[in-house]
This record gives sequence, structure tokens and C-alpha cells, in this order.
Amino acid sequence: MEILKTKNLMQQWSKARKKKDKTICFVPTMGYLHQGHISLLEKGKPLCDELVLSIFINPTQFGPNEDLAAYPVDIEKDLFLAEAAGVTAVFLPQKEDIYPHNFQTKIFLDRLPSYLCGHSRPIHFGGVATVVTKLFHIVMPDVAIFGKKDYQQLQIIRQMVCDLDFDIKILGGEIVRESDGLAMSSRNAYLTADQRESALSLSRSIQMAAAAIANGEKKSGVIQNQMESFIKGYPHTRIDYISFCDPHTLESVDIIDRQILLALAVHVGKTRLIDNCLIAPSQ
Amino acid sequence: MEILKTKNLMQQWSKARKKKDKTICFVPTMGYLHQGHISLLEKGKPLCDELVLSIFINPTQFGPNEDLAAYPVDIEKDLFLAEAAGVTAVFLPQKEDIYPHNFQTKIFLDRLPSYLCGHSRPIHFGGVATVVTKLFHIVMPDVAIFGKKDYQQLQIIRQMVCDLDFDIKILGGEIVRESDGLAMSSRNAYLTADQRESALSLSRSIQMAAAAIANGEKKSGVIQNQMESFIKGYPHTRIDYISFCDPHTLESVDIIDRQILLALAVHVGKTRLIDNCLIAPSQ
Repeated sequence: MEILKTKNLMQQWSKARKKKDKTICFVPTMGYLHQGHISLLEKGKPLCDELVLSIFINPTQFGPNEDLAAYPVDIEKDLFLAEAAGVTAVFLPQKEDIYPHNFQTKIFLDRLPSYLCGHSRPIHFGGVATVVTKLFHIVMPDVAIFGKKDYQQLQIIRQMVCDLDFDIKILGGEIVRESDGLAMSSRNAYLTADQRESALSLSRSIQMAAAAIANGEKKSGVIQNQMESFIKGYPHTRIDYISFCDPHTLESVDIIDRQILLALAVHVGKTRLIDNCLIAPSQ
Repeated sequence: MEILKTKNLMQQWSKARKKKDKTICFVPTMGYLHQGHISLLEKGKPLCDELVLSIFINPTQFGPNEDLAAYPVDIEKDLFLAEAAGVTAVFLPQKEDIYPHNFQTKIFLDRLPSYLCGHSRPIHFGGVATVVTKLFHIVMPDVAIFGKKDYQQLQIIRQMVCDLDFDIKILGGEIVRESDGLAMSSRNAYLTADQRESALSLSRSIQMAAAAIANGEKKSGVIQNQMESFIKGYPHTRIDYISFCDPHTLESVDIIDRQILLALAVHVGKTRLIDNCLIAPSQ
């Protein structure tokens, strides 16, 4: 496994592989790898000749009051896990290499970022779209894999790749959960034992909603009220949003008469957690 | 010479060439080719194995009161000239192929587009940056060539390519002028005989400024006043801007103590013309 610490070295590595007709699968991350990331690497491993992991805590996707400075880091463990997962190259750049002096180009999407997490994180997805474009140009992948826990991010990447004609296949990796249902996230590391219990309110409220829909409830407003009461029953929780929406456009859906995305964000203490599920109505 | 009318065909053509280790030089245009375009093709011809010309009148770089509907078209002549210049593939897409339903991704730069033409064309360079990114992903060039008449555009493309880590070498092609000094432009076709004479005010005022600087004048404000009076002496003229600026940042320069860019835009009748020159002070 090679470790490439500058964008020039990474780009040269990828160009050399492409010249030899090697295909490249790419999993971009912010590090502090957990089983969710590993599952993306496992999904990518058989697809291409090379498997590239990037670890870069991208400052431009954090708002001023977010957790950039606190974001957990454990490069040594990440590299160990990456090697075990069959990664052939790790891209580990410095901030100054990615955003040099006079950097001024940004990518925005008109509609998709305005929903869900976009309300409370207005600059987030522009930062994501821009850094992913850069990473795509540096790593030159044939396939790139993003986790479905960040469902909105995945949709935005898909839309951007389509709109900008990137010749890259985008795959989504399933949400990986702890045995009690909590969606895996690097941010779970922030939770105290008390908060860890309250964090279950996300996945449990989704299960509750899925059960209600399976029982024939069609009104998203009714289920949303139930979910809000349920989540508020857990200490330390503050709901950011609960959205029943179209899985493609992310526009709100009032009547659940087709498959919908149920997505939510909840602050548990100072930690903002997200979760989601695609749910189809009962026949 | 192949003519490729969809982005899928063009991308497949380029991928097939790349797979055979062929290098691609790319000259993007809006068609209605003149000697300025031809000089870019001639510059590119010896640099790569393949020479690709695109002809696409990009609607997103025209403002609501600009000349999108009137922009001159002569595809047959363009194809004849392209073949004569050694073009190996022409990309000739339709608007609906480039901007399908639900298109929503855009590229912006923070600073460079705010100067010069950016004042009167606020959406122009976002449209340019976005379509050029798409064209780069579709054509996959190793080298791309842009004319220096659109100096600000060239700087913006260079900045974007650097910021977004495109693995593409950007070259500028010199301004080509008619024998009387008028910079070649597809928009010169709009000019009546009277206006054609007034259009000379741009290149002549630049010559005047260069002479003043050669004679030791250091104050850009003094020269700008002279240029304004000179241009206003021609009928049908309305000055959009005259700028003495830093050739890299495009920020205004008051004292000419190093090389500057002199750039101007003048309406001649309903036609907006631009011209520019890099000028160094006398020693």
C-alpha cells in the first residue's frame, strides 16, 4: 500500500496506472475509519485493479460553528484498517496543498443542497462538491463509492457527476449499523454514555415510522409528529429536521403513496447525528 | 475529420484515443471561425496526436439583453476551415444534450470574474467556467488553447484549472488583427461600414496608450482620460470600461511601474467589442 502525501504525487500515481490500463476505484473519506467506511472499501475492492482511499478533513465543508477543530483523527489506525481492506494507495494531503493561496473556484448546485441538511449547513454541500471535484481530478477514478448514510451528499455527487459529464461511475454503499441500530459515524466518538443511548432515538424513530407506513399510514405529517414526540422523550436531543421526501429531488412529500426517503438530523448534546431510510408504502 | 454530435459519442471517441495513448489538443469555440480561431488550431496542430474543435454557442454565458439569438452561425464554412486546419474531430453538440432537464451544477470564481467584463456581464464567466469544465470532461484534452483577446476568460480558465486540479495544459493564442489593427472577432460581423471604422478606436487607443507609456507616462488615470476622449471622437461608440490592471489578479493599477494589462470594452452601435494589450513601462 502506497501513501501519497501530495496531490502531484497522487495524480502521477494515478496517471501511471491509467497508462497501464489499470482501473481505479476510489473511496473518499475524512478518516477515523469505522465499519461503514470499511464496507465501502470491501464493495470497491473487487471492482477495479486499484483501490484508492483518501483521508482529508475538508475545512470548506464545515460551518463556522461546526466541529472542524474537534473532528477525530487516528491516521495510524486508519492506515492499518486500509491495508487490511486491500487499499493499494492512500491519498493523505495537507490542507495547504488542496487549498493553496489564491484558491477561488467553487462548485454549487441550485436545488439539491437547499433541502434537508442544507438548512442548517448552508455552505456544506458547496464545499463537498468542490473538494470531490478536486479529488476526482487528482485520483482519476473509474468508480467512486459514497456511503448512503450521507444520502443527500450521494445524490448531490450523482447530480454533479451527471451535470459536469465526469466519466466516473458513482456507487452508494449501504448504511452500516451498530448491533443496537445506531448508524455508524465518526462523530459517534463524541457521544458520552448517556448521549449514546439518546442517539438510538434516530434509528428507533425510523423503525417506528416504517412500522406506521407498513400499517397503512399515508400522512407524513402524522408520522412526523409521532417521531418528534418519540425523539423528545430522549434526554439531550434537539431535532434539526425530520423530512419525508422524494428520493431523487429531495422535495417534501405529504402523502406517502410511493417510495419515499425518510431522513432526519438530531443534535444529541453537541453532536449532530443523521440517519435515513428509503421506505415504500404497503401495497 | 470526424463530426461528433452528442457528448456520449465525443467522450467515447476521446476515451478510445486515450486508450491508444494518443494525446488530444482542444480548441473550444462558439463557431463562425475567423483567422483568430484558425491561429489557435495551427498552434495546437503540432502539439498533439489529435486536434479537437468544439462549436457550441453556450447559452449560459449570455446575459438576458445580450446577443445570444443573433450570434452568427456558418457551420458549413466552419467545417471546411476546420478540415483545412487539420482538425481530426469536431464536437458539435445540441443545447439539450449539454444542458439536460434538471441541470443544476455551476462553477464560480470568487475574484477574477468581478473585474473588467464582469461588471457589465455578471453571469458570463460562471457560464464559461461551467461549460469549459463540461467540455474538458467530454473531450478529455491534454492541452487546451484559448485566445488572448478574451484575456480575462483565459486567466479565469487558468485559475480554474489550477484550483480544480485539472490535468490539462492551458495555452493562450495571440490576438490576430485585421490589417488595420481591429482584433478579429465573430462579432465584427455585426458592424456596418460606419461602425467598422469606429471599431478601430479600440486598437488605436491602445496604440496611443502604449506610446504614452513608452514616453514615460506612469499615471494610468492620465492615459485613461486621453483614451476616453479619443474613443468618444468616433461616432457610435460608448465605452464600457478601460482598465489598467495587474495581468494576474486583474486589480486596477494606478502607477504603471511594471507590466500591466490594458483592457477595454466599447460598444460600437449595438456591438460590444473588447481588446487588450500587455504593456511594460519604458526603462
